[in-house]
This record gives sequence, structure tokens and C-alpha cells, in this order.
Amino acid sequence: MNDVLIYDPTLRDGQHAVRHQLGVDAIRRYAEAADAAGIPVVEVGHGNGLGASSLQVGLAAVGDDEMLSTVREALRHSRMGVFMLPGWGTSTDLRRAIARGADVVRIGVHATETSLAERHLGVLRDAGAEAHCVLMMSHMATPGELAEHAARAVGYGAQAVGIMDSAGWFLPPDVTVRIAAIGSAVDTPVIFHGHDNLGMAVANSVAAAQAGASIIDGCARGFGAGAGNTQLEVLVPVLERSGFSTGIDLYALLDAADLAERELMPAPPVTASMTIVSGLAGVFSGFKHRVVELSARAGVDPRDVFFELGRRQAIAGQEDLIVDVVAELSARTGRVAALQK
Amino acid sequence: MNDVLIYDPTLRDGQHAVRHQLGVDAIRRYAEAADAAGIPVVEVGHGNGLGASSLQVGLAAVGDDEMLSTVREALRHSRMGVFMLPGWGTSTDLRRAIARGADVVRIGVHATETSLAERHLGVLRDAGAEAHCVLMMSHMATPGELAEHAARAVGYGAQAVGIMDSAGWFLPPDVTVRIAAIGSAVDTPVIFHGHDNLGMAVANSVAAAQAGASIIDGCARGFGAGAGNTQLEVLVPVLERSGFSTGIDLYALLDAADLAERELMPAPPVTASMTIVSGLAGVFSGFKHRVVELSARAGVDPRDVFFELGRRQAIAGQEDLIVDVVAELSARTGRVAALQK
Repeated sequence: MNDVLIYDPTLRDGQHAVRHQLGVDAIRRYAEAADAAGIPVVEVGHGNGLGASSLQVGLAAVGDDEMLSTVREALRHSRMGVFMLPGWGTSTDLRRAIARGADVVRIGVHATETSLAERHLGVLRDAGAEAHCVLMMSHMATPGELAEHAARAVGYGAQAVGIMDSAGWFLPPDVTVRIAAIGSAVDTPVIFHGHDNLGMAVANSVAAAQAGASIIDGCARGFGAGAGNTQLEVLVPVLERSGFSTGIDLYALLDAADLAERELMPAPPVTASMTIVSGLAGVFSGFKHRVVELSARAGVDPRDVFFELGRRQAIAGQEDLIVDVVAELSARTGRVAALQK
Repeated sequence: MNDVLIYDPTLRDGQHAVRHQLGVDAIRRYAEAADAAGIPVVEVGHGNGLGASSLQVGLAAVGDDEMLSTVREALRHSRMGVFMLPGWGTSTDLRRAIARGADVVRIGVHATETSLAERHLGVLRDAGAEAHCVLMMSHMATPGELAEHAARAVGYGAQAVGIMDSAGWFLPPDVTVRIAAIGSAVDTPVIFHGHDNLGMAVANSVAAAQAGASIIDGCARGFGAGAGNTQLEVLVPVLERSGFSTGIDLYALLDAADLAERELMPAPPVTASMTIVSGLAGVFSGFKHRVVELSARAGVDPRDVFFELGRRQAIAGQEDLIVDVVAELSARTGRVAALQK
């Protein structure tokens, strides 16, 4: 059996589903439960990572330092992970996190923007933490581009590198070709992080493992924005049945997931229509509220807006594009004119 | 592109999730929405099919005749389907359903009990309805056995034959080998009906289509017991992206799913821990309430009970086995004795 290392961002990526409002007690209890299940890495933080808590993207209920201290104390065997987006967090945030006991630090960049991670990966190499680099919105890059950028990240010092299916667009064959391309370009472990917009997160993760990925992400009950992340307590037994070894205790894992459902979330994620559309369009589902709101005001179909945003390859930070697309579709359909009569 | 015929049991299999309490208005509105989306077959009925409404398994809110008349009136293009389990329904029920406009009639039998369908398939052949035969709990039979029983069903008059993953146990390779075996044994269309206990319902359905199945089941928002059925409005675009043609309008399908979420269910299905366990154990998730209740009383772990029921190949109708297993596990662990002190 091949070993797969399970990486659990429930307490970080899951935060998006509750606007970063997880409290200290809930964080501690989930970390203890994950540790008891033998999950190798437990990631914690604001949904957008170190330093991201702000009025603009949302203030977390608990600051970075306190989140890290809480999880550090809760973990006996598991390692602690953190996530950072260059520009949102800084080298100072990285050093503070490592001082507070972060064992694994992930730098996230857009699929073809690896150069943004260069300086931070260098800082991590010097600071002694395990450095990962993840390429986000990876469906927007070809397998060859991903391989090239993965190799660059390793050149900058990444000790593991891989892809996030940030829009939940992939089907298994898409994952297979990308993971294989990256695997043939680097000697480090390869990472896969899925989202469930098309009901494929677990199947995509198995495809990734079969193509050579050895670090796979999953969140308890799929905790995360929109359709949610790969459901951890489904992923683990399905990987085991598919011939991979995770070293995780199934019953303790199910207990952790039950605790997560009770204490972290109002309800588990649902694959609703707009998240299916954003997945099919290849657009970050975080655009949803704004797309729905502006579309309603202009009398256009928000699904048309998502598909047009997909054609224009909109990425996070380009929310202004929504305004343009809504205005154009509105003019094209003449619905606003009709409404104004 | 190969054509796949989508068969929609939302108004029949979904009923399990609401104890067969769908009302006439909700049934009518969903049938109209499904028809508008171009779904080829809309199935309706008590969760356990024609004639099953009873005190023992649950009285439906609406009788068979009224459900059928309601859907018949609502459909302009879609055909109407019904389901029957021999022993629960009778030839009289079949003839009444056909008189009320059922176009497609499915007879469901345990995977290796095709002979139970012989008489009813004969009745259908004479009555002029399209006859399907589905083999339930199909993970308990080998591909060879399924092929043999599928061929027998065709011999009895079935015009389409296939498998239900009643326990939600399959992973895609399990589906591929079974559908291929059936396909090589019969000349009729082959059916696949999935459940989502292991997060694999859509992936399994794609695997089925790729292995030659041409009738695939899905329910709006996955409406169904436990982890739910294959989510219809995810299944359709994923099949289309995988190279299959369904003829269904995506936006109208999403509208139908939104309506289903609003009007048919208190909340969409969640893949909770006990449904994962029942899937892994290969046991019908309908056992859940009884397993949890008896386990709690005896102080044993309900997950152990499910896995032991799986080893004993428990099937629906064998609920008495739960009592035996709980008693044995309880004696083995000595927990009851401890509790009684």
C-alpha cells in the first residue's frame, strides 16, 4: 500500500463558511479530536491565511497568535500547519507563526504566479519550517504550465508542491494529467486540494493519489465555502479501500467529524445550484453573493454572469469584472430598459 | 456523443427521506419542473413502490392512484415511471398503474432473486408498458451472477435491466466491472442507480455510462434516505462534460432542483458518519434508526454493529439480525454487565 499524508485545513479553509468566526473552544476541541484520530497535519487560521483578518475581507473572531497557541497546545502528535497568501500576510507573520509552533507553512499563489512565493519560501527555508507551495485556480493553467511553476517553487525552496481546485471545476481525468505532469517535473511530494462543486472532490482526490500525489487535503464534513471541500471522513476510508494507507483511525475520525458538525458549523455544506454553476464556469464561488446581488438589480440571470466570468477567466480580486459583465449582459438582453418602462 | 437517458426517481426514492409524506401540490410542481427541463422519465410513488403504503412500512400522504393522476396531468413530454417490489405490490397494482398512464414500470428484486420478477415482467409485456428490472443490493453479487440474473430478467420480458447500489458501497472500478459484465450478457439498455454514502454517486454514474450503461438515475439535490441518491443536477452537466448527451436543459434542471429543495425536503441530504459506515459495511442505511437505538440500549458501538451486519450480508427484511448482532457484541464486550452493576 502506498502512503498518503492527509492534510486537514478544517480550521482554516472551513472558516470561509462561517466568516472566520470559529471561537477558541471550538478550535481547541476540533484540534484535540483530529489529533486523537492521528491526522498528520492540522491547519489553522483565518480562511485567507496569516495576516488576512481585516475589515475588508472579514475580521476573524480570534487572532492569529491565539489560534496558533490554542492548536499548538491541543496537539500531541499531529503537526500544525498554517497558510499564507503573499500580499495578505508578510514575512513577519511567517516568523511569528513559526515562533508559535507552526511546523508546516503553505504559501498559496495563483497557478501561474509562483514568483510571488519566492521570497517567502526563502524565509521558510532559513526559518526551519516545512515549506509547501500550492498553485490555486489550477484549472486555468495547462498541465505544462503547472509543471513549470511547480518546478520553480521547488527551486525557491518548497519541500512539497501541488494544486488547489479552487473553483471546483476538475473531473478526475483533469486531475490525473495535471498531477502526473507535476510529478514528472519535481522530486518533492505532490499536493492535491479539492472542492466539491461537481460532486467530484473525493473521486478527484483518489485520481490524484493514483497519479502520484502523496499529500491530500480534506475537511471534516467538507466544511468550507459553497459546496465545500473534500469530505475528510469519506476521503480517508475511500483512499484506504483504493489501496492507500493513511494511518488514521476511522472511528476517531468519524468522532472528529461529528464534533465538527456539532461545534464548527451551523449545517454541513450543500451543493446548491449556484455553486454547481460556478464550478462549471470555473469561477471562484466566493463571487456568489456579489453576482447574485448585482444580477438581481439588473434583471439578468446570475448563471449567465458566472459563465461569462468564466469565459473571461476572472480570478479572486477581480470582483470589478462582475459589474462589467452584468452591465453588458443587461444591455444585450434589454431587460433593464424593459424594466424601466 | 453517446446518449444517456436520465431517469428521475425524485418523487419515489426521495420519499424515503420524508417518510412518504410528499403532498399533491409539491408532487405536481416538481413534475411540471422536471417536464420543463426535458427529463425523459419522472418516477412517482411511495418510496417502496406500488402497493407499499401500509402501517408497517409507513403510510404515504397520498395514495398511489392520486399520485399517478397528478403526475400524469403535469407531464407534457416526459414519460411517467413507477416502481414495484414483488410481494409489496401485486399484478393488480401494476395494471392499475398502467391504466393511470404509467409508461415505464420497474420491478425491483434482490440481486440474485430475479425469479421473483418473472410473473410481473410477463404481466407488463402483455399490458404494453415498458418493463425494467433492477437488481438491488448489487454489491452482494459477483459480476458474473449479476450478468446471469440480468439475462434471466431479459428472458422474462425486461426491456432494460441494471443495478442499484442500494447500500452506497461501490467505488468506480466496482461499477465498471459489473456494468460491463451485464452489458456483455444482454442486448437491452443497462441501468445504473447510485447512492452517495461514499461521496461517489456521480463518479460511479459516469463510470457506469463509460462502461456502457445508457439509463442513469438521479434525484434533485440527491433527495433520498441517508446520504441521498445521485444528485441529478450535478450528474447531468458532469455527464455532458464527460462526452454524453442527455438532451436536458441545464438552467431548467437547476430550477427544478431549487424547487425540489424548497418544496420537497426540509433540507438536502448530508453524508453523516453513520451513513458512511453503512456504506462501507455494505448494509442498507434504512437499518440506521434501529441499529442506533438498540446499540445505545445495550452499550455497544453502532459502527461495530453495522460492520458485523455487513459481514453477515444482512439485507432489507432481515432487521431481526440487528437484535442478534447487538446481543452478541454486547456479550463479547461485557459492557451490558458493566452497566448493570
